[in-house]
Amino acid sequence: MDPFVVIGGDAAGMSAASKARREAPDREIVVFERGEWVSYGACGLPYYVKGEIASLDDLVAVSADRFRDERDIDLRTESEVVAIDTAAQTVTVESEGDRYDQSYGDLLIATGASAIEPPIDGIDRDDVLSLHDLPDGRAIRERLESGAVERVAVVGGGYVGVEMAEAFDGQDCTVDLYEMREHVLEPFGPTIATQVEKHLREQGIGLHLGTTVEAIDAGPSVVADERRAVDLVLVAAGVTPNAALAADAGIAIGETGAIATDRLGRTDTDRVYAAGDCAEADHTVTGNPTYVPLALTANRAGRAIGTTVAGDPTPVGPTAGTAVLKAFDLEVARTGVTVPERARAAGFDPASITIDGASRAGYYPGGSKVTIELWGDRASGRVLGASMVGREGVAKRIDPVATALHTDLTATELSRLDLSYAPPFGPTWDPVLTAGKVLASALE
Amino acid sequence: MDPFVVIGGDAAGMSAASKARREAPDREIVVFERGEWVSYGACGLPYYVKGEIASLDDLVAVSADRFRDERDIDLRTESEVVAIDTAAQTVTVESEGDRYDQSYGDLLIATGASAIEPPIDGIDRDDVLSLHDLPDGRAIRERLESGAVERVAVVGGGYVGVEMAEAFDGQDCTVDLYEMREHVLEPFGPTIATQVEKHLREQGIGLHLGTTVEAIDAGPSVVADERRAVDLVLVAAGVTPNAALAADAGIAIGETGAIATDRLGRTDTDRVYAAGDCAEADHTVTGNPTYVPLALTANRAGRAIGTTVAGDPTPVGPTAGTAVLKAFDLEVARTGVTVPERARAAGFDPASITIDGASRAGYYPGGSKVTIELWGDRASGRVLGASMVGREGVAKRIDPVATALHTDLTATELSRLDLSYAPPFGPTWDPVLTAGKVLASALE
Repeated sequence: MDPFVVIGGDAAGMSAASKARREAPDREIVVFERGEWVSYGACGLPYYVKGEIASLDDLVAVSADRFRDERDIDLRTESEVVAIDTAAQTVTVESEGDRYDQSYGDLLIATGASAIEPPIDGIDRDDVLSLHDLPDGRAIRERLESGAVERVAVVGGGYVGVEMAEAFDGQDCTVDLYEMREHVLEPFGPTIATQVEKHLREQGIGLHLGTTVEAIDAGPSVVADERRAVDLVLVAAGVTPNAALAADAGIAIGETGAIATDRLGRTDTDRVYAAGDCAEADHTVTGNPTYVPLALTANRAGRAIGTTVAGDPTPVGPTAGTAVLKAFDLEVARTGVTVPERARAAGFDPASITIDGASRAGYYPGGSKVTIELWGDRASGRVLGASMVGREGVAKRIDPVATALHTDLTATELSRLDLSYAPPFGPTWDPVLTAGKVLASALE
Repeated sequence: MDPFVVIGGDAAGMSAASKARREAPDREIVVFERGEWVSYGACGLPYYVKGEIASLDDLVAVSADRFRDERDIDLRTESEVVAIDTAAQTVTVESEGDRYDQSYGDLLIATGASAIEPPIDGIDRDDVLSLHDLPDGRAIRERLESGAVERVAVVGGGYVGVEMAEAFDGQDCTVDLYEMREHVLEPFGPTIATQVEKHLREQGIGLHLGTTVEAIDAGPSVVADERRAVDLVLVAAGVTPNAALAADAGIAIGETGAIATDRLGRTDTDRVYAAGDCAEADHTVTGNPTYVPLALTANRAGRAIGTTVAGDPTPVGPTAGTAVLKAFDLEVARTGVTVPERARAAGFDPASITIDGASRAGYYPGGSKVTIELWGDRASGRVLGASMVGREGVAKRIDPVATALHTDLTATELSRLDLSYAPPFGPTWDPVLTAGKVLASALE
């Protein structure tokens, strides 16, 4: 049998290769990675920049040598796949000036995503950086360690923008954050985002909402609501799937711009799979293709595809877009559909309620507020999604809601779950249950 | 219509009365409480004893006066119901030497539970206390504040025993804890209990496992593996339902010894309901009647019955026995069926796996181990229950498993849930997902 070939050596690709190795010990497995690093935790980069993680090596889950030596995977770093011939079942590889073809029996495209470059004059200046991979992280930290960075502008108020605002603040920089929308953290909704914004301001972050950065002049100097001279600009405007290689090979791209896949992670092309930040996944709530470039989605899909190519067809599983981030002293979490336009587009009649709960029993010292916005569908009573924020007890409190979405629970059913209770960890009625009760009434 | 009469003014009773008031504004509602306190958080008592909560009043969720004045509930404290006549639909009440009958249209028995008194010689001595209600808590704290208590023996290693060991330790007492079984925290299983025991010993608790207390002599002095002179003995040997009043009235008692109820919380007797620590509930996993005297079970059932008697039949909902406790620096949580004999009795073919996960990404500072034992059924692949322990991130990590039990998820389905991930809060594959994967393999 021709080998299982994987394009891309990060979460999806290495998960697939490792799982295929375990399930099919005798099969040849070849992974092409255009960069130097494989299987690294990009989510840890803000904490590396902040100085809480000593070395980039700490972010590498499994080294390239271990994949080669212990898992018997033919991992070829600094080897870029530049073309796929789906008829011949070959990929064309460029490496150190050489160019060669490699045939495949099964092919996984796990080419990841790239940082979006917004159309801003001067974005290609030397003092404008992004944070997408380990070399990016190293470049930023080297600038910080050079001592020449005191003022930073962060362009974009998504996960990475907010996490990096904290990272730069932790390195004693003055931070201004620019978001062109009215709120940061768009997937969390304005109710929760407003609390995060208040907290960011309390931490000393200069927040410029509804503010488009028009240009970055020499200096550098950010031209937006006013002109601001800084030492470094970080652009965190989101990511875009690396789908061109697939598109050039005639493989179908979905409406989101990522590679279209079915429930087994297969593209429209025989023997070709796609997973991770370059691929679509089905949404747990809407059932529609969605683009959720997050680590668990990539790992799960890779692992499932590794099982499938070894002969045991395994669904990659839907994604609810569950996410959590730390924003200074806050935990901010979300799952499901929390944007009404998206709910309506999927055929739902959405409504939401917001409650303030508590992280501990009222009489137990040290508790703090937990705010939950919970979304449901008036027609079916189903829970559609949730956003939460608080100083503790939020990160894992989103998980019962994510689980409820997986099985289409109604708000009433959510309110009747037997969730854990003890005074140090919550009130008798967990805030999730209270939100379920209030939503059930609102949907009636 | 004759009034809605409630016997017992704590969690189940007052939840029912309050909900019935909201749903049926014009109905007469009478609550009889034999004690002085109503609607109090007994779960907070260990922290009151420890000194972290200043006043017993802090534990009262809603005062008696507020029930009377703001909720228009005819709440009669220090009024004990001594008989129920289900044919005449009356209860007989004793209060301040008077005795009278009160007719009911609907009756809720919410008489709670009492501390079990194990058959130990000398258990009725003055220096032997239990902790079940607010006066118990006051009595213990008064002893501590008198300064005459330096050495304490705790008899029983369940939730209350472990929490009280921490409370006495926090009051600078030397604590010895006696458990007649081989392990503390029986509903959590030996794997998790063993970690708790190690931690208790590290905190300086003298742990006497598999040790029956034979007598409490004058002094007092505990006679067990050896004779130990102490200043105070706390007996925490569990609770037994207060079901005699119902039994005397001919109302059916279940095999657990608690009052038998159906899905609406009705007893076998027309117009008579039971809820809380005196009543059975259906188990989420087995579907069988079970006895789970915990706060949320009581609150949920009371609220549902309040809705039902107001004309909208509402299930009390099953209980999974979800529970969490703080044991010094550990969080210990459980849900579902985690005792193999009980699983087999319910027709399952149980198996369990144990994994060590982490509370944060491996490279993120400050994380700690999270151990999960996950139980499943070999025949169906279903998840049956889980126990967990760790220094952080455990209390709410049990909730997605509790939610999964509610909808009969298999281990494979559990492993594919889209749970939250960020480096400060867990690894990419949450320990719950890893446990699901390992269990799914073990059940194959």
